[in-house]
Amino acid sequence: MSINTPICQLLGIRHPILQGGMAWLATAELVSAVSEAGGLGVIGAGNAPPDWLKDQLEKTRQLTDKPFGVNIMLMSPHAMENLELVIREQVSIITFGGGNPGAHIAGLKQAGITVIPVVSSVALARRLERAGADAVIAEGTESGGHVGDTCSMALLPQVVDAVNIPVIAAGGIADGRGLIAALALGAQGIQMGTRFICSDECVAHPDFKQHIVQANDRATTVTGKALGHPARCLENRFTREFSEMEKSNFNPEELDELGRGRLREGVLLGNINGGSLMAGQISGLIKDIKPVQQIIETMINQAEQTLGGLSELLEA
Amino acid sequence: MSINTPICQLLGIRHPILQGGMAWLATAELVSAVSEAGGLGVIGAGNAPPDWLKDQLEKTRQLTDKPFGVNIMLMSPHAMENLELVIREQVSIITFGGGNPGAHIAGLKQAGITVIPVVSSVALARRLERAGADAVIAEGTESGGHVGDTCSMALLPQVVDAVNIPVIAAGGIADGRGLIAALALGAQGIQMGTRFICSDECVAHPDFKQHIVQANDRATTVTGKALGHPARCLENRFTREFSEMEKSNFNPEELDELGRGRLREGVLLGNINGGSLMAGQISGLIKDIKPVQQIIETMINQAEQTLGGLSELLEA
Repeated sequence: MSINTPICQLLGIRHPILQGGMAWLATAELVSAVSEAGGLGVIGAGNAPPDWLKDQLEKTRQLTDKPFGVNIMLMSPHAMENLELVIREQVSIITFGGGNPGAHIAGLKQAGITVIPVVSSVALARRLERAGADAVIAEGTESGGHVGDTCSMALLPQVVDAVNIPVIAAGGIADGRGLIAALALGAQGIQMGTRFICSDECVAHPDFKQHIVQANDRATTVTGKALGHPARCLENRFTREFSEMEKSNFNPEELDELGRGRLREGVLLGNINGGSLMAGQISGLIKDIKPVQQIIETMINQAEQTLGGLSELLEA
Repeated sequence: MSINTPICQLLGIRHPILQGGMAWLATAELVSAVSEAGGLGVIGAGNAPPDWLKDQLEKTRQLTDKPFGVNIMLMSPHAMENLELVIREQVSIITFGGGNPGAHIAGLKQAGITVIPVVSSVALARRLERAGADAVIAEGTESGGHVGDTCSMALLPQVVDAVNIPVIAAGGIADGRGLIAALALGAQGIQMGTRFICSDECVAHPDFKQHIVQANDRATTVTGKALGHPARCLENRFTREFSEMEKSNFNPEELDELGRGRLREGVLLGNINGGSLMAGQISGLIKDIKPVQQIIETMINQAEQTLGGLSELLEA
């Protein structure tokens, strides 16, 4: 059995499951594993330069011949060079984060690329549909990393009602129940980040993965609102220092300085107290680290069971 | 057709739909309409004295012989008197908000009352299950009024996994898609507040109802975090003044003074700029004001359609 939606045809995938393009962590290892398992792996360009991205594209293509995508982070100093690279390299699917990619869509479409921006509001979803986006990822504030204000449960049906292109749900999903909930709200698929960090294949530091497994429902916090780019992380010494400085002595340059390099330190090098540990509120639901293939299979099985259970609630 | 879960038997209702016990607005008019339509109406005691509550109990009993409940707000100066009243009056179902009702549960159970606290975390859900609660309402931060931090999509499955008693979903639900999403996440029913404000029967001021109908997905904001009791309202002059004072010149007494009486002014008297307009993020999904019976019927029909649509996604 499988769960099939039109987004599966659009992206050439078996399961309507996308992997979030997380900076530092969405590398060829994870991306190829997700695509091989029937989802859509997405390389996270983050702040990396084009050399790094080119290297990851080559590695991914060696590891899988299935479709995969690249996430371009618009706040990166290398965003434009990376965009030129993905066109040159004929990447087939691009997702966008960290801003409004409206101005880039026409060029990418002309190059035959499927374009799927991440949005956190109805207004941006509408604007990007008009600009030619093929689908949008509606991301709730429960997500890890950069976030908007609106929760998935409220955001999703409002975006679905506002646009005619397919909507993919992100934020607060880590199992088959979440997949069915997202589909019920009108999404055609889902994107997961935190769940895929806790996979064998992800290059995240083992201590960070373990920290997610041990997290509870209230383990995350949002910092950076004062800077205009709020991000959700597991709460630790770093987030407490950052949010103290935001409140008491707001100085954008000092804050930027305080944040510099912390994400790599946290998620890749395993500095659990002093690093930035971007992860979603669904961390508390994640209780194991396992191969990507098992994550996806377990999810689809649970989704089918969930759907079966729902059908039994209907009474004539 | 109807959607039947064990909570329907527990509460003696036809549809697994509870109405939030909103201060000032959840009066006999709305409560009796919801119960007559097959849901569970819940009188909102808010900060009201026992005389008011007794009057509402009598009115509700004149208007319906179906089950209904009372919400006791634990921060109210009259909470204890109101609790004594509901025992004396043999109210059959109590919901709780605004705190931890653990200490009251044994006494209410002894009086034969079904007790359903509102929780916004896994830890409180576990504690209240141990204290004898019959079910919990897991309320996501997208809700209107007093809120916690965790979004419904992330909170619900975590609470469902943590307790053995039934879980009712609140926060971000206003239609049949939301109902099915909540059931998929493991809830046995839902509670709605904002959707029921926009009913013909609710005594809310017409201008407030209209303001919800015109709201978009980003219309709400949370104030009061610095005071330790955050609340979600439609953003207006009042919330901007309040949050400015929270940031720049934090003085709990001045803030309390600024907030005094504002909820009644906003929701009942229709002071759209200067009042407190408690409402959830799902306001943007609500596009009409109609009779309670129609709200519930439309919702159940849409839920059935949603479930039918989901079943078609399953492929052998």
